[in-house]
Amino acid sequence: MRILIAGGDGFCGWPTALHFSQRGHEVAIVDSLIRRKWDEELGTQSLTPIRTLEERVAAWRELTGKEIQVYIGDLTDWSVVERVFREFQPEAIVHYAEQRSAPYSMIDREHAVFTQVNNVVGTLNVLYAIKEITPDCHLIKLGTMGEYGTPNIDIEEGYIRIQHKGREDVLPYPKQPFSFYHLSKVHDSHNIMFCCKAWGIRATDLNQGVVYGLWTDETRLDERLYNRVDYDGVFGTALNRFCIQAAVGHELTVYGKGGQTRGFLDIRDTVQCIELAAMHPADHGEFRVFNQFTEQFSVLELAERVQRVAQQMGLRAEIAHLPNPRVEKEEHYYNAIHTKLVDLGLKPHLLSDELIRDLIQTAMKYRDRVRFEVIKPNATWR
Amino acid sequence: MRILIAGGDGFCGWPTALHFSQRGHEVAIVDSLIRRKWDEELGTQSLTPIRTLEERVAAWRELTGKEIQVYIGDLTDWSVVERVFREFQPEAIVHYAEQRSAPYSMIDREHAVFTQVNNVVGTLNVLYAIKEITPDCHLIKLGTMGEYGTPNIDIEEGYIRIQHKGREDVLPYPKQPFSFYHLSKVHDSHNIMFCCKAWGIRATDLNQGVVYGLWTDETRLDERLYNRVDYDGVFGTALNRFCIQAAVGHELTVYGKGGQTRGFLDIRDTVQCIELAAMHPADHGEFRVFNQFTEQFSVLELAERVQRVAQQMGLRAEIAHLPNPRVEKEEHYYNAIHTKLVDLGLKPHLLSDELIRDLIQTAMKYRDRVRFEVIKPNATWR
Repeated sequence: MRILIAGGDGFCGWPTALHFSQRGHEVAIVDSLIRRKWDEELGTQSLTPIRTLEERVAAWRELTGKEIQVYIGDLTDWSVVERVFREFQPEAIVHYAEQRSAPYSMIDREHAVFTQVNNVVGTLNVLYAIKEITPDCHLIKLGTMGEYGTPNIDIEEGYIRIQHKGREDVLPYPKQPFSFYHLSKVHDSHNIMFCCKAWGIRATDLNQGVVYGLWTDETRLDERLYNRVDYDGVFGTALNRFCIQAAVGHELTVYGKGGQTRGFLDIRDTVQCIELAAMHPADHGEFRVFNQFTEQFSVLELAERVQRVAQQMGLRAEIAHLPNPRVEKEEHYYNAIHTKLVDLGLKPHLLSDELIRDLIQTAMKYRDRVRFEVIKPNATWR
Repeated sequence: MRILIAGGDGFCGWPTALHFSQRGHEVAIVDSLIRRKWDEELGTQSLTPIRTLEERVAAWRELTGKEIQVYIGDLTDWSVVERVFREFQPEAIVHYAEQRSAPYSMIDREHAVFTQVNNVVGTLNVLYAIKEITPDCHLIKLGTMGEYGTPNIDIEEGYIRIQHKGREDVLPYPKQPFSFYHLSKVHDSHNIMFCCKAWGIRATDLNQGVVYGLWTDETRLDERLYNRVDYDGVFGTALNRFCIQAAVGHELTVYGKGGQTRGFLDIRDTVQCIELAAMHPADHGEFRVFNQFTEQFSVLELAERVQRVAQQMGLRAEIAHLPNPRVEKEEHYYNAIHTKLVDLGLKPHLLSDELIRDLIQTAMKYRDRVRFEVIKPNATWR
């Protein structure tokens, strides 16, 4: 299959590109490299040292003989999108190429506007490219479980059957996103749903949970293939950040009470889910929605679990409850359905102490790279 | 009350500005005048001759002694928004300043991207201006009934109580918009809902139906105050377009079967509803949603009604069923609740033969201004 990985230099995109290439698919990456510029803007960096995309792809070629084609360019630029689609003629596109941090989107007005314009326009351009150039191409779009918010009823996969005043219909599940970033994904979902209906586009919207872990079979192969991992207050996410904090002797920073419950998954399951979606494409005109995570945890549960493993390793790992920079419920009902990917064959890697230990050990190895001053949250919702 | 009318040079905005000024409120308009440029782009014009905004406001001053302040500028430009909010310190803003045509948004990729960026960024800027400059300012935002699409259950006003697997919650009503324009309004609604929750902003989202008519007490006063009215395939809307078509001997253009049912209202009720919303503001943190229309009609019903009145006037008024340029159901269930504005005191002007006759007469007076070649739809959904 000819598969285009948009955002293929990123935390999920790079392992996904390698995963498909390893299995013999024809892979191309399109990436603007802007994620690396945000590191410069924020004074942050990946815990692990990562090579340039050029070096990564060259190392992959050297190690496996497999070629990954690279296009450097921004999806908000139509001339880039048009050229990539005309030349590569993708049968599927995995679209990770968005600004993906909630705190980044909340820094100020400029960052809010940037996030929404960047994400919405990039996706609109992809939709038009599919319509006009490769109408059979399957769009596999990364959304987020955060689109749903925390309703007091079960979260279904994209749609909900509603009985109301003696009538019934299956309607898009109501969305209550809680940052300008999460909102941008809701905007995308609505735009894609419309294009499926109006133009017969085939699309899978993956409402992904919080991804933890770092390694896949391919990224582990060679230091030049290492994946990035973020621990800072803007791009770092709960579990990974806690492991790195434990390793360097920083408190584990829980926002508020920590009762915020979310869906989580191992990065190896991210690539597995993407492969399942690609191998079982949506039909023409179908807007298919999967909830892509494997387990639910509260933030405090995760902090305590990391603390336990860390203490077994002789680390202190104290938990600090910071004032919550976000506006969100800290205690709430949460039960999200996530059976569709399992039905397609997903075999989850559930969270293990081994993985936590491995992450802490990786962080200890690279502890000199950790900048303490970027760990605390620097953006506020209020 | 100090009330800012964003988009105050437009079809709804101008009568609204006059209405508030007439009642003794302190009114300012902010408008980029871009609507007039779209006429140039499309080769269209208002049926009625309209004066420049400068001349309109001068005539209003001359006739009534009342001053309407004018800011020329675009809401997507933060420096404009910041200046207007700092100088005028609005207690309420009525936000009409968006690209409001579904067909315009469907012309091509550029128009789709323009519509969404223009509408979403303008509204984000207004939200930040309220947060940072005038936190007590009440945002009265024009949305559209088209946000809801045509679900097979009753359409409630913004929210719906859902019972699901033994639990229940009141959630935002699911949206199924059917053009990039309608989608932009859904994006706005989600963004505003979030800002109410996160920042305590007070907002009223008005899901307005299709507006017909032309005259209000104020716009009728003097030819220099005349409102614009559109009959072309891009900006013209069902009822007004039919009346003008009847007047000039053009077929009444019904798209497909004409079973599409929508909510409609008289422009005099638009200004009445806005006044009711402004006089009864939402609370801090409240995202209030009203369905703003007075009656439901199918498109074919309206065409037949116009035909009947036109024939009484000796006009032929044939109905033509054009191939539908839109992707939409042509027969469907439709029942939208619209009681909240009535509860606040709305006294509807229901559709009358007199109004249709008056519209046809106005169109006959200005028939020399009608360009036949712009009446047919020029944008397709497919």
